[in-house]
Amino acid sequence: MSTVELIRKKRDGGTLTTEEIHYLIQGYTKGNIPDYQMAAWAMAVFYRGMSDKETADLTMAMAQSGEQVDLSMIEGIKVDKHSTGGVGDTTTLVLGPLVAAAGVPVAKLSGRGLGHTGGTIDKLESIRGFSTEMEISEFTRLVNKSKIAVMGQTADLTPADKKLYALRDVTATVDSIPLIASSIMSKKIAAGADAIVLDVKTGDGAFMKDEEDAIRLAQAMVAIGKHVDRTTVAVVSDMSQPLGFAVGNAIEVKEAIDTLKGEGPADLTELSLVLGTQMLLLSGKYGSPEDARQTLEQCIRDGSALEKLKEFIAGQHGDPAQIEHPERLPQPKEKIPVPAETEGIVQAIQAEEVGLCAMKLGAGRATKEDPIDHAVGIILHKKIGDPVKKGETLATLYVNQTTALEEVKKRLIRAIHIQNRPASPPALIRCLVTADGVLRM
Amino acid sequence: MSTVELIRKKRDGGTLTTEEIHYLIQGYTKGNIPDYQMAAWAMAVFYRGMSDKETADLTMAMAQSGEQVDLSMIEGIKVDKHSTGGVGDTTTLVLGPLVAAAGVPVAKLSGRGLGHTGGTIDKLESIRGFSTEMEISEFTRLVNKSKIAVMGQTADLTPADKKLYALRDVTATVDSIPLIASSIMSKKIAAGADAIVLDVKTGDGAFMKDEEDAIRLAQAMVAIGKHVDRTTVAVVSDMSQPLGFAVGNAIEVKEAIDTLKGEGPADLTELSLVLGTQMLLLSGKYGSPEDARQTLEQCIRDGSALEKLKEFIAGQHGDPAQIEHPERLPQPKEKIPVPAETEGIVQAIQAEEVGLCAMKLGAGRATKEDPIDHAVGIILHKKIGDPVKKGETLATLYVNQTTALEEVKKRLIRAIHIQNRPASPPALIRCLVTADGVLRM
Repeated sequence: MSTVELIRKKRDGGTLTTEEIHYLIQGYTKGNIPDYQMAAWAMAVFYRGMSDKETADLTMAMAQSGEQVDLSMIEGIKVDKHSTGGVGDTTTLVLGPLVAAAGVPVAKLSGRGLGHTGGTIDKLESIRGFSTEMEISEFTRLVNKSKIAVMGQTADLTPADKKLYALRDVTATVDSIPLIASSIMSKKIAAGADAIVLDVKTGDGAFMKDEEDAIRLAQAMVAIGKHVDRTTVAVVSDMSQPLGFAVGNAIEVKEAIDTLKGEGPADLTELSLVLGTQMLLLSGKYGSPEDARQTLEQCIRDGSALEKLKEFIAGQHGDPAQIEHPERLPQPKEKIPVPAETEGIVQAIQAEEVGLCAMKLGAGRATKEDPIDHAVGIILHKKIGDPVKKGETLATLYVNQTTALEEVKKRLIRAIHIQNRPASPPALIRCLVTADGVLRM
Repeated sequence: MSTVELIRKKRDGGTLTTEEIHYLIQGYTKGNIPDYQMAAWAMAVFYRGMSDKETADLTMAMAQSGEQVDLSMIEGIKVDKHSTGGVGDTTTLVLGPLVAAAGVPVAKLSGRGLGHTGGTIDKLESIRGFSTEMEISEFTRLVNKSKIAVMGQTADLTPADKKLYALRDVTATVDSIPLIASSIMSKKIAAGADAIVLDVKTGDGAFMKDEEDAIRLAQAMVAIGKHVDRTTVAVVSDMSQPLGFAVGNAIEVKEAIDTLKGEGPADLTELSLVLGTQMLLLSGKYGSPEDARQTLEQCIRDGSALEKLKEFIAGQHGDPAQIEHPERLPQPKEKIPVPAETEGIVQAIQAEEVGLCAMKLGAGRATKEDPIDHAVGIILHKKIGDPVKKGETLATLYVNQTTALEEVKKRLIRAIHIQNRPASPPALIRCLVTADGVLRM
């Protein structure tokens, strides 16, 4: 097989066979196919797209390019959840204990990642003593016992995806739906998922600004799942403003605790219930969406979801007392209110900009080596549609170092658009995408 | 400036500025921009194309990427001629002495190149003692004295083009008209041309199989010439069968001698006169095409063109007696006739396949290190439209080694299509492309 012929085939709109795609990905992973050929191929894919079967083949080739986690020792169908990223997205912290409380195993591999706030592991490490370093045997034991565990991703999963993603980043070939879809799905499959629930964000704070693009991405991933026999459903949800009120690490843990108590923000609660319902359905243990949702609501009401969080934290050497007393989580030196400069109705909140402000305060990292400050971040007090008086607090900054403070304040005020006209909160759940089609909400 | 932003700009159909194109080409030449970014950019150019101004900017950026030959010490307008390649194309050997005999300076830098036969230098080296190794001062002196010299291309001309071409070759981005056009033009400009006559081949033996593609390439190069103030005209000519009868090195020198005597093949003679007329016109020394063509015909008739060839050869240490006695040029051990297996009319001659057969006999080289056998090659005896009897000689193989002989015979017979129905010779000159437009012939 000749790489240049495969590039030409895709360039001219042809469809690559399973063997051809495996040849490309294996050759690239091993270093036999150079970056410049993959870059030309990726650009051809950008223009020509890929069929559902090609995208599924690419997904499996990448999933099989490195180690693959074997979760077969865990009882039940392992349903993984993935969000395409957003700002202040605390759903993973809520969903894990909530779904586990409903009896469905949550075996989560997680990374630290770069971004506005830390990854799920960073957030959980706000809790004293909590550790995600463990052997796969201990991980399996914990999930079988408590139905939930989170393990740090130490294995060499999907090296092909890592290499290809880094290449796409510097060759303007990131925004290609089949390449994005296969990248996400390959990681979930290598991590051992039997079924997958996706939360595809749309709006200013999301990678997919446009709702139709988000739906297309969701459809591409659902189609991959169907092809590779991992049932996949996707919820397209709003990220035109941050989810919940907290954007940080310890403050998102606190927000998750509130939500598991039934006292969380309405949007975070609702999205967690919608995603959780889909996870329960895919586990095969629940017969109807109503049944699943009622169980989740019951787990919140009766305290079992919060108890599950404590059990999970304790199982991984964390201090459950911090869950009962969230005021014992890391606290910042200062809490600085940001007052409104005008009055009116909140029209929009530029989620990405709020995320960058939190990062500037130290909540996230730009490079792998950057430290995370668990205590800092931003608590919003207003959401789209809320009335605001001049001088009223729009947000509170949780601050340890004060160098970038004035800049953050200014940017945050500019990110919250206030005008003297009515505004409605955006619909949180836009649609559900399954193999059967798109169900608009 | 960010390379990934420039790739994205081109990817999305934008037009790069002069500065942006120079940034890309300079960065790539110096090694600051990696192959994988240029590969992605080249693929984006493949799909999006380039404006005339962008193509001209790319041409100049590549022309200026290395050494540039200064021919200002040579009197008169230096008109260079370039052919886009073909099979059995002896025009350069004919045109040089012919145009020089008409008083127009021919200052040719030439390479050896890879291909079916050797390059112009290889062909000329069939002549005993002939050398193209000289200083630029000697080159200048020769052209001022005799109006013609050919120098081996030792300078580091257009390194950006060399690097980009090698990259395009392995990333399926060769067939992009702006990239082909700028590659050709950059080399001519770096070699010091004031004006350029292009012979763009079309047909089976050419890079541009399709006539409309050939016209588009011609137009792109003429447009570059206009933008960069090097008047350029292009002749689109037939390569659906080899030009002339000889495909080799010494045998093409012999054919050139015949043509300069007025005894050459009709197609080679006509194309040489057409291209020569354009060169004379661009030199500014001739008022009309009729005037120019009559002078060239006169130079053949009165023997001055042949005398000029001898003067040129002698000036570069070659043996002019071999021009007077072409039978003293390198001769093969054997001349083997290839008889027709059927009777009928020649419908087509697959020029590329004839070229590959000549290469197989040793006339060309596949890698830089391969030796050239000056004596070998193929003499065709039939052209499209000619009647053929069974057993009549279609071609004569000039052979020194006999290993691939049977294969070559078989392939050659298959390359010459004979059927029992009439066939007309293809039109040799398809059109003339100038800044004023396309003049179909």
